Amino acid sequence: MSIEAERNKTGFWFTEDTGPDSRISLKLNSILFSGSSPFQKVDIISTSFGRTLVTDGKTQSCENDEKVYHESLVVPSFLKHGNPKKVFIGGGGEMATARECLRFPGVEKVVMVDIDEAVVKMCMKHMPEWGENCWEDPRLDLIYGDAYGEFERMEEEWDVIILDISDPIEAGPGIKLYTKEFYEMAKKKLSPGGVFVTQSGCGAVNNWDDCWSSIYKTLDEVFDTVVPYRSNIPSFACPWAFTMGFSEPVGDFKTGNGVDEKIEQMKPVFKGKQTEYEYYDEETHRCMFSLEKQVRKGLQAEKRVITMDNPVFMF
Amino acid sequence: MSIEAERNKTGFWFTEDTGPDSRISLKLNSILFSGSSPFQKVDIISTSFGRTLVTDGKTQSCENDEKVYHESLVVPSFLKHGNPKKVFIGGGGEMATARECLRFPGVEKVVMVDIDEAVVKMCMKHMPEWGENCWEDPRLDLIYGDAYGEFERMEEEWDVIILDISDPIEAGPGIKLYTKEFYEMAKKKLSPGGVFVTQSGCGAVNNWDDCWSSIYKTLDEVFDTVVPYRSNIPSFACPWAFTMGFSEPVGDFKTGNGVDEKIEQMKPVFKGKQTEYEYYDEETHRCMFSLEKQVRKGLQAEKRVITMDNPVFMF
Amino acid sequence: MSIEAERNKTGFWFTEDTGPDSRISLKLNSILFSGSSPFQKVDIISTSFGRTLVTDGKTQSCENDEKVYHESLVVPSFLKHGNPKKVFIGGGGEMATARECLRFPGVEKVVMVDIDEAVVKMCMKHMPEWGENCWEDPRLDLIYGDAYGEFERMEEEWDVIILDISDPIEAGPGIKLYTKEFYEMAKKKLSPGGVFVTQSGCGAVNNWDDCWSSIYKTLDEVFDTVVPYRSNIPSFACPWAFTMGFSEPVGDFKTGNGVDEKIEQMKPVFKGKQTEYEYYDEETHRCMFSLEKQVRKGLQAEKRVITMDNPVFMF
Amino acid sequence: MSIEAERNKTGFWFTEDTGPDSRISLKLNSILFSGSSPFQKVDIISTSFGRTLVTDGKTQSCENDEKVYHESLVVPSFLKHGNPKKVFIGGGGEMATARECLRFPGVEKVVMVDIDEAVVKMCMKHMPEWGENCWEDPRLDLIYGDAYGEFERMEEEWDVIILDISDPIEAGPGIKLYTKEFYEMAKKKLSPGGVFVTQSGCGAVNNWDDCWSSIYKTLDEVFDTVVPYRSNIPSFACPWAFTMGFSEPVGDFKTGNGVDEKIEQMKPVFKGKQTEYEYYDEETHRCMFSLEKQVRKGLQAEKRVITMDNPVFMF
Repeated sequence: MSIEAERNKTGFWFTEDTGPDSRISLKLNSILFSGSSPFQKVDIISTSFGRTLVTDGKTQSCENDEKVYHESLVVPSFLKHGNPKKVFIGGGGEMATARECLRFPGVEKVVMVDIDEAVVKMCMKHMPEWGENCWEDPRLDLIYGDAYGEFERMEEEWDVIILDISDPIEAGPGIKLYTKEFYEMAKKKLSPGGVFVTQSGCGAVNNWDDCWSSIYKTLDEVFDTVVPYRSNIPSFACPWAFTMGFSEPVGDFKTGNGVDEKIEQMKPVFKGKQTEYEYYDEETHRCMFSLEKQVRKGLQAEKRVITMDNPVFMF
Repeated sequence: MSIEAERNKTGFWFTEDTGPDSRISLKLNSILFSGSSPFQKVDIISTSFGRTLVTDGKTQSCENDEKVYHESLVVPSFLKHGNPKKVFIGGGGEMATARECLRFPGVEKVVMVDIDEAVVKMCMKHMPEWGENCWEDPRLDLIYGDAYGEFERMEEEWDVIILDISDPIEAGPGIKLYTKEFYEMAKKKLSPGGVFVTQSGCGAVNNWDDCWSSIYKTLDEVFDTVVPYRSNIPSFACPWAFTMGFSEPVGDFKTGNGVDEKIEQMKPVFKGKQTEYEYYDEETHRCMFSLEKQVRKGLQAEKRVITMDNPVFMF
Repeated sequence: MSIEAERNKTGFWFTEDTGPDSRISLKLNSILFSGSSPFQKVDIISTSFGRTLVTDGKTQSCENDEKVYHESLVVPSFLKHGNPKKVFIGGGGEMATARECLRFPGVEKVVMVDIDEAVVKMCMKHMPEWGENCWEDPRLDLIYGDAYGEFERMEEEWDVIILDISDPIEAGPGIKLYTKEFYEMAKKKLSPGGVFVTQSGCGAVNNWDDCWSSIYKTLDEVFDTVVPYRSNIPSFACPWAFTMGFSEPVGDFKTGNGVDEKIEQMKPVFKGKQTEYEYYDEETHRCMFSLEKQVRKGLQAEKRVITMDNPVFMF
Repeated sequence: MSIEAERNKTGFWFTEDTGPDSRISLKLNSILFSGSSPFQKVDIISTSFGRTLVTDGKTQSCENDEKVYHESLVVPSFLKHGNPKKVFIGGGGEMATARECLRFPGVEKVVMVDIDEAVVKMCMKHMPEWGENCWEDPRLDLIYGDAYGEFERMEEEWDVIILDISDPIEAGPGIKLYTKEFYEMAKKKLSPGGVFVTQSGCGAVNNWDDCWSSIYKTLDEVFDTVVPYRSNIPSFACPWAFTMGFSEPVGDFKTGNGVDEKIEQMKPVFKGKQTEYEYYDEETHRCMFSLEKQVRKGLQAEKRVITMDNPVFMF
């Protein structure tokens, strides 16, 4: 065996159990930070996906495809609304959700509440491109605290409410933010024309029922219109789901017709070498909102409603 | 630690290197067959994806999602054509591609050429649901041999030509079937209105350039219209690409408008409990043919053309 | 990459967690049996160590080195005694411990009590070389039941008592057989000159305290003379410990002087191509009973005594 | 599943292929250094074995058991000689072999030649306990260069010659140092009563033929007396072999009789909290030099002699 082959036999690996029966391993180039906050285990590593935030052993976002996730989470809701001025973000520790919101000059105020100051600080330090220094933007109000409690306490109305929190795992910090009780409160605090959106876990033909379908069903109990969609994010090892809720009819929103024009109108500002969205545009939108037959049937057939008393847990 | 946890600590695993820097492991329930043919290593195993054909260490198709792959490979081309009577399949060892073709009552003849009789026989024995006994259909002519040579030798015209072969890995048996030379011959042997389609490897935003973009570029040198698409197949660990080529303008084919109606008209016949396509319909079609921005840009920018003298290899 | 290298990239693996921080993986050639008995998960597989019994995810014995384990467990006690006629075996499901006992023509009766009939039957079927049909020897009385209870019930005296049971893991079936209470009963049921021996788990310089030292300390509370020893068994991934207890002074037993001659005198009978012990002889004995400095100090310093009320668990 | 269990599901791992069919994985706590020298890939990591030097993907020595290795390599030869004054070390990058030599007040000069300055410097920085600052000892002459060439060039005689180099892998830097040609030169350069010793790779009942037996056979062609021995080093995942060569009869050296007394006489000096050898003493010696039956038979039966033209490679 050649010395090169010999050398390649070794390896440092980041291994993530993606279910009781599956495991993904990525070559680990370096460990930039490894520690624990009061809320979770926090690691920032480098793999072939670039720098990566890992909390409680689960990949949160990666340098190479974080834009797919964050553009998917933020931009469709903003376009649906048309002219959001006040935005609430629950979670969002990497600061990239705030970045996508503040990209729009029409936005006047973004309140972001993340429970874990340590995660936010480590992301600012080791993954500064995620946030693009948006924490210096005076329109941003960054609060460390319980998103549920803070949201309840604030007496404002919001044009867009974004939930960017970890998956609902047992005893995970965000479990309350996936309940019918929270969604009802969110609906009440939306301004007319307001849009709610939450990340919703795995979204493939074989795992839409991990938590997506029950999040969908729960939102469907609360909002007049609920629109599920998903994007394929390579580092998450499966298509990733999102769900929007609002009060108006859906119209032709899912076709994506007019998306490119609307982006023009809303004039998002890009920094550095970036001059446009990496992922999102009209055809991408059409893909995101066109779901596979099995997934559509599965979401429609779901009966579980998530409440404080009956939470739903992912692996 | 409880005895249950103790018991779960063990494990049999099927591990597939998905690249030099990544590895997927699935719990291995049983090994139904393990051997080698003159052409490749052949294993049939059972994992959480159900029974699975593995050749040369790569997952070929799984019980739980083979319909996503085979419907994606076959049905769009058939609908594009409208009334195919004569079909050529290169590869197709699991017999499920033939199954999807023979599902249409209008089909008069399917010639399938697979190099590896051992694979076909093992699939018939251990994965009979893949083929649904279609090998007893008198319309099927099943030939064990070199698809390139057999295709060259036959002096017929074809309405649909389907390439369902392993990825282009160095010295793999199907490498010639991914070349400009082969595509030129295929074009000549299509009847008027004929459609060519080939599986095309990984199709995600981070790996469209493994081989898809060069297959796309090569087809683009040969066919008037080339249409790339992809479906997310969980057991393949990434969206999977396909590419069609034909002579007519693409029209509104990519929108999927009218797909459900066309399916009705072509009256595919389902067996057993199945009464309709599991995966494919109008909205699924729209998703399949709407590509992400990065992927579209990547395919357009590709310069590599695959020829006998300049093959392109995947990992 | 060559097709050969490509083929070798795949793999079926048997992975055993050897601790919270370590994991061993062996290429898995085939799964001969996989199931569960009322007492444990039972697998018989084939790896590069040959056929292997795995219970509850832990390697029990392998074709290629089971003789190292079984000769180590049985022969030193037999030689220490000199002329054992009646032998009790607790556990011993692979039938190889019985084989080693019945090898001696002077043995008149072996009673073996194993709780798990399914394991014994599967071993007889899939690993017949372990037992060499010794179950047909009329001197063997094979009982399926609780070794503790059966041993307590029988009113006989024994020349050698051998404990060949799984490691003491929480809720594992054999936990009572590692207690001071059991050892006291065993001592009472030994004939004059009788010898007790138990397998004792990991025995390396870094893991003698998993359970060996507490087994040693517990035996030391009961027996006049306690002699710890170990053999390196490759498939166990560490040296493996055993502990003897008896009433006479140890004399020069540990030097191994005279071992080869004693073997001659006791005339063990070998079957098939085997004509002598594979592993055990005078120099091997000297190695087995000469312990590393750290291990000796560790065993001496141990304070834990295992009782019904204070069991000690291994990983 | 509890959040604790959830957190433990993740992991960073150091995985070492220990053969074509086996793989060991250790939890990776941190990567202290990762780079390449002109000669090899060099990593210093932290696992449950403590800090660890890894070159070309193979564990070289670990904080928790390096003393087992280095005492085994150095002390028996020193005791065999009785009063070595001049010592040559080939390799020894961790500086711990030099440390063990310089521990003896009678030693007047140690020449150490290691090819890889980067390894030595990284060990001095990240693993200073290995060397205990012995590089400041004026008796040490540390040369960065090719051990074969430097040894050949020097016209001195040596009381002890120690080879502490990587295993003989193809194209590895030390391959010439495992040949009959080198051993013949070494014999000529030993002073009367001089002792040669080399690390010799894996030493278990199932892998003594990786390279140990051919090293043994080759030394046996050159030296009057050749004495093989081994120590179990947990982090190496198998017993590790060493082989000595000298001109006098072996006498009762292998029994270890008198070892403790000789240690007293030679007055090794220990630093810090250490007051005696961790691993080595009379009973440990007896274990090291008493080999298992299969190993003894295997070494005796070996026919391969390693020469410049016919090297032997390990996995």
